[in-house]
Amino acid sequence: MLGEFDLIARYFAPLAAGAPGAFGLANDAAVIDPTPGHSVVVTTDAMVEGVHFLPGDPADLVARKLLRVNLSDLAAMGARARGYVLAMALSPDIDEAWVATFARGLGVDQDEFGIVLLGGDTVKTPGPLTLTLTALGEVPAGTALTRSGARAGDDIYVSGCIGDGALGLKVLRGELGSLPEGHRASLADRYRLPRPRLALGQALAARRLATAALDVSDGLAADLGHIAIESDLAAEIEAPAVPLSAAAQAALAVDPGLREVILGGGDDYELLFTAPPGAAAAIAALADELALPVTWIGRMAPGAGVRVVDEAGVPIPLAKAGWSHF
Amino acid sequence: MLGEFDLIARYFAPLAAGAPGAFGLANDAAVIDPTPGHSVVVTTDAMVEGVHFLPGDPADLVARKLLRVNLSDLAAMGARARGYVLAMALSPDIDEAWVATFARGLGVDQDEFGIVLLGGDTVKTPGPLTLTLTALGEVPAGTALTRSGARAGDDIYVSGCIGDGALGLKVLRGELGSLPEGHRASLADRYRLPRPRLALGQALAARRLATAALDVSDGLAADLGHIAIESDLAAEIEAPAVPLSAAAQAALAVDPGLREVILGGGDDYELLFTAPPGAAAAIAALADELALPVTWIGRMAPGAGVRVVDEAGVPIPLAKAGWSHF
Repeated sequence: MLGEFDLIARYFAPLAAGAPGAFGLANDAAVIDPTPGHSVVVTTDAMVEGVHFLPGDPADLVARKLLRVNLSDLAAMGARARGYVLAMALSPDIDEAWVATFARGLGVDQDEFGIVLLGGDTVKTPGPLTLTLTALGEVPAGTALTRSGARAGDDIYVSGCIGDGALGLKVLRGELGSLPEGHRASLADRYRLPRPRLALGQALAARRLATAALDVSDGLAADLGHIAIESDLAAEIEAPAVPLSAAAQAALAVDPGLREVILGGGDDYELLFTAPPGAAAAIAALADELALPVTWIGRMAPGAGVRVVDEAGVPIPLAKAGWSHF
Repeated sequence: MLGEFDLIARYFAPLAAGAPGAFGLANDAAVIDPTPGHSVVVTTDAMVEGVHFLPGDPADLVARKLLRVNLSDLAAMGARARGYVLAMALSPDIDEAWVATFARGLGVDQDEFGIVLLGGDTVKTPGPLTLTLTALGEVPAGTALTRSGARAGDDIYVSGCIGDGALGLKVLRGELGSLPEGHRASLADRYRLPRPRLALGQALAARRLATAALDVSDGLAADLGHIAIESDLAAEIEAPAVPLSAAAQAALAVDPGLREVILGGGDDYELLFTAPPGAAAAIAALADELALPVTWIGRMAPGAGVRVVDEAGVPIPLAKAGWSHF
């Protein structure tokens, strides 16, 4: 294994080449210049081998998921991503090939999302590989989306499909064996490679369409609970309205009990947001513009708590309040 | 042990109370508004139990060291500290009392340095406690100090005293037993609780006195090597000029072989910087103003590499190129 400085020079400095303020990673800290009139948005997420990913997971996908879960947090604030810093605690089994593949994954997503590596820290650990990424973005001052702005009567929307993340984890654990291979692969991919909805978040903020927003990481019901609590309201969603992928629909057809996994499981990284009824047409137009499904799933109301109702309006009890990454 | 949300609410949300953009830690990301005309400075450092600190180390001191090594990086850029995000991978042996003490340490240093907690992530690890802190600061645009600006003929200065960090680590490992207890305690304290030189860094940047700067974390010789490489120059320091604390002088008197530890060891977190000869009076005035010793130790010259010479101008070979935290 190379030493710290050689690892940085060979695999990480090239990822910082596009950022003059990263100084080729040969400095104590990095400098970025926010666009005038913008606030800086910052978020951090850690992933531990054996907890958040499996020892054999492809290093490039681990890198991209780490980056994307952070970008998803920026998306939920309506921010544009600028760059990131990365702290790696490398376990003894990590070799140079792993680092090379990991860095290649970062490079792929840097290109996809237009961001750069700004800095980092590389240390050794006798324990499992532990990766911490801090993403920096920016948003026009005063427009950042939060969880607390929902109002009674607001509609509740979600982007993309819900449940694929939790079902994908089941697939990777060897469950859902009766599903066709194509569906299994699709679900696993959705678990491993979230799609941060940056364009949607930015447009919702810039056009002031959303009153509250977050990304679905703890599970639809639990995350909606965060909006309800922070906005001091109740939320009611109609289970049949929740958008499901073809793969999730197929899984649900085989085992209706998976409805709870779909509504309560995490790792979807879709945007969940509220908007006044008057914004419906503008939201539909935005969804068309982005070629991204945005689906009405319920409504905010006075009160507290999250209710999920079925076709007949009967509440569905959700035993599992939400996925805890803790 | 409390769950993630309860831990955050009880121990960490109070640390974010002073930052409106932290949203009480109940949001996906945090927002900060840089002062207009300023660049944002970002740095990250990770610490692993058993590697960077010992399992029995007081949690409040671990917290404060983690914060201070990051603040020291901001100081080296001439930045003012604004806030930080914290990712914690908690090992099974960490209990609520540990977290409470850790958070109390953060609170003490938040008050001392005028910063706030902006956000974070809390996960579990089967391995050692792993802490990653990312600090954010700001500096007037165009004034950030870097490692690459030194010019031939520039003087080399260092703040405070050199060697206490490395000697303090020896004390904590049970070495240097012949030193008086007061000296031993002083060295251990310097290892455990660095003094980030924020006021000095900010003044050097604002008054444009320094041509290059960094903080001494890898060891005086190795860190000066970073400036030499990035500035494409040679550096020569006079060993007798290097400022030593009374404790380090006492240690050196007992064992002259410790000179190499002092010059090559790390963890001093003093500022090492270069400045043109014409800045000498202004630097002396600044040192007076801050009541912080700033000492001339050598000079930059054409060429490459770092030379350390003794009283007679004879080069001292340094076997250990520098402390590696990797």
